[in-house]
Amino acid sequence: MPPSDPPDDAERVIRAEKAAVSRALNLVEDKRADAQDRVAALLGSLKGAPRAVGGHRVGLTGPPGVGKSTLTSAIARAVRARGRTMGIVAVDPSSIVSGGSLLGDRVRMSFDPSDEGLFVRSLATAGEVGGLAYAANSAVRVLAAAYDVVVIETTGVGQSEIDIVHVADTVVLVIQPGSGDVLQFLKAGIMEIPDILVVNKADQEELARRAVADLQGALRTAHAVGASGREDGDWETPIIATSATEGTGIEELIDALDAHRKHLEPTLGARRAQGEVQWVLDLFMRKHGDHGVSTLHGLAELTARAERELDEGETPLSLCERLSGEYVATLRQTS
Amino acid sequence: MPPSDPPDDAERVIRAEKAAVSRALNLVEDKRADAQDRVAALLGSLKGAPRAVGGHRVGLTGPPGVGKSTLTSAIARAVRARGRTMGIVAVDPSSIVSGGSLLGDRVRMSFDPSDEGLFVRSLATAGEVGGLAYAANSAVRVLAAAYDVVVIETTGVGQSEIDIVHVADTVVLVIQPGSGDVLQFLKAGIMEIPDILVVNKADQEELARRAVADLQGALRTAHAVGASGREDGDWETPIIATSATEGTGIEELIDALDAHRKHLEPTLGARRAQGEVQWVLDLFMRKHGDHGVSTLHGLAELTARAERELDEGETPLSLCERLSGEYVATLRQTS
Repeated sequence: MPPSDPPDDAERVIRAEKAAVSRALNLVEDKRADAQDRVAALLGSLKGAPRAVGGHRVGLTGPPGVGKSTLTSAIARAVRARGRTMGIVAVDPSSIVSGGSLLGDRVRMSFDPSDEGLFVRSLATAGEVGGLAYAANSAVRVLAAAYDVVVIETTGVGQSEIDIVHVADTVVLVIQPGSGDVLQFLKAGIMEIPDILVVNKADQEELARRAVADLQGALRTAHAVGASGREDGDWETPIIATSATEGTGIEELIDALDAHRKHLEPTLGARRAQGEVQWVLDLFMRKHGDHGVSTLHGLAELTARAERELDEGETPLSLCERLSGEYVATLRQTS
Repeated sequence: MPPSDPPDDAERVIRAEKAAVSRALNLVEDKRADAQDRVAALLGSLKGAPRAVGGHRVGLTGPPGVGKSTLTSAIARAVRARGRTMGIVAVDPSSIVSGGSLLGDRVRMSFDPSDEGLFVRSLATAGEVGGLAYAANSAVRVLAAAYDVVVIETTGVGQSEIDIVHVADTVVLVIQPGSGDVLQFLKAGIMEIPDILVVNKADQEELARRAVADLQGALRTAHAVGASGREDGDWETPIIATSATEGTGIEELIDALDAHRKHLEPTLGARRAQGEVQWVLDLFMRKHGDHGVSTLHGLAELTARAERELDEGETPLSLCERLSGEYVATLRQTS
C-alpha cells in the first residue's frame, strides 16, 4: 500500500473519488495495528463531513434467498434517478461454514461501473459467525462521508439483525411471502421491530396481500408482548410489497426511507451517538472480554465513560485503544 | 445455600436424587466465583460416572414456534416407556429483547412431577444474545451424570445451533412444513447439517410429504456446496415426520436417536473431547477476548494445549481458571 496522508485521503473520500474510497476500505479491512491506527485517524477527519452528518445510513437485512441484493440494485437505480449518490457495503456471511465463496447473491447485483455516484463493496465475515464484520462499522462511516445514501446489506436473522441497529439510521427488514420464521421471531420478541418492513418477491398479488396481513398480525402481537424497535411509539412501521425484478414498490420504498429519515431528524444525533457507544463497547469486549469490562469498573461505568468521551470528540477506535492501554496498565499496577 | 461437600453431592447426583440435581443446577447458574469453583469440583467428581460416560446427550434445536417443547414432552414419555431415565435442560432466549419471561413454550410441556426418572429445568439466556447460556454446558454435564438420556432444547437458527454442536452427541434440528428460512440456511451452508432432521406438525400428509422432499433437496444442495455435519460421510441424516400432539413418528425418532448413538460409539470419546476443548476456548475468550488468546500464543497453541491438559484429566472450568491466571501473570511480568 502506498504511504498516505490521512487529511489528504479524507479530502478525497469526501469528494467521493472512487479510488480514494476504495483505498480507505482496503485499510478498513486490514487488521494490522498500524492500518487500524490510520483508520482511526481517517475516521476522525471524516467525522464532520457534510454527508457524514446529513446523509442517510440504511441497514437492509433479512434471511438468505429473499432477494436483498436485487432489491439493493433496484434501490440504487431509484436513488440515482433522484439525483443522489449512493454507497453500498454488502456483508457476506457465505464463508462461514465452507470457507469458500458462495457469491450467488453478488452475481445478481448489476451496476454501471462508470457511474461515479455509485460505489459497491463486499465485506467477508469469515470467522465472525453471526455478527457484522469487524470492519463493517468503519466501512459505513467511510462511505457515509462520500455518498448521500449508504446501504449496508447483511444476511441473517438474529445476531446480525441486532448489530445492524448500531450502524444504521433506518433498519429495513426484507422477507418474502411465507417467511414463517421471521414472523415467529417478531412475535416472540426475539427480533426487534424494524423501521420498515419489505415483502419482496411480491409478484403474485394474492400471496403478497396475505403476507402483508400476516406481518401486520405479527407486528400487533410483537407490540402486545412488549417487543419494540428504537422508536418511542410515534413511528408506525410501514409494510411495503416490492418486486425487485419487476421494479414495483421501489419508489414507495424510497419514499418511506425519506419519510423515516425526516422523522429521525430531531433524534438522529442521539441515535448515532448511542450506536458509537455500543461500537466501542463491542470492540473493547471483543478484545478484552468480561475481565476487561470488570477491571474498568463494569459495563455501566464504561458505557457512561464512552458516552462522555465520544461526546468530547474522541473516535471509537482510538477510545477503544486507550481503554485497552488502561486495562493492561491497571493489571500491571496491581502486581 | 447450605454448605455442601462436592464428593457427597456428586454421589447424590449420580444416584439421580432430584433435590441434589436441583441444588447442583442452582450452583451452576450462580455466577459468583466461589460457586463456580464448586461447580468445577463437582464436574470433576462427576466426570467418570457410568451414565456420564455411556448416556446420550441430545441437542434439540430449531426456530421458535415449531413445537420443540411439545416434541420434547413426547420424547420424554417414549424414553420413560422404554425404561430409561431422562433429564431436560431448556435454554430459553425469550428474555432477549423484553427482559420479561415469555414462557409460552414451557407452558406446553407437561410432566409428571412425581416421576423420579425425569428431571426438567429451564435456563434463562438473559444478556447472552445468540449463544447458549453460560451455564448450559455445566448443566448438561450434571444431568448426564444422573440420567440415561439428556435433552438440551434451544431455540434459534444460527449461533445457538452452532454452539449446541459442542455440547450434544446428537443434534436434532426441528422444523415445520414450509420453514423456508431453514432450508435456505442449509442450502447456503450457513447452518451445519444436523444428525437428525425432524419435520414436526406433520399432521397433514400432503404438506409433510412435500416438506420432507424439500429437505431432501436442501440436504443434497448443502452436500454439493461442501457444507457438512460432523460425520465422515457414513451417516445419512434421517428425515422424520412427527406430530407431537398426535404422537406419530415419535417411536421412529427414538429409534433414530438410538441408531445415531450406536453409530457414534467408536468416535464418541473424540467428539466429546473436541466439545470440551471448544468449551474451554469459549470460556477463555469470553473472559479475556482476543488479547487473551494472542497473549497465550494464539488460538492454535491454546487449542493444542487445551486438548493435552483436558486429556490429562483437568476439568474445563479449572483449566480456564488456570489459563486466566497465566494471562494476568504474563501481563504483569512484561511490565
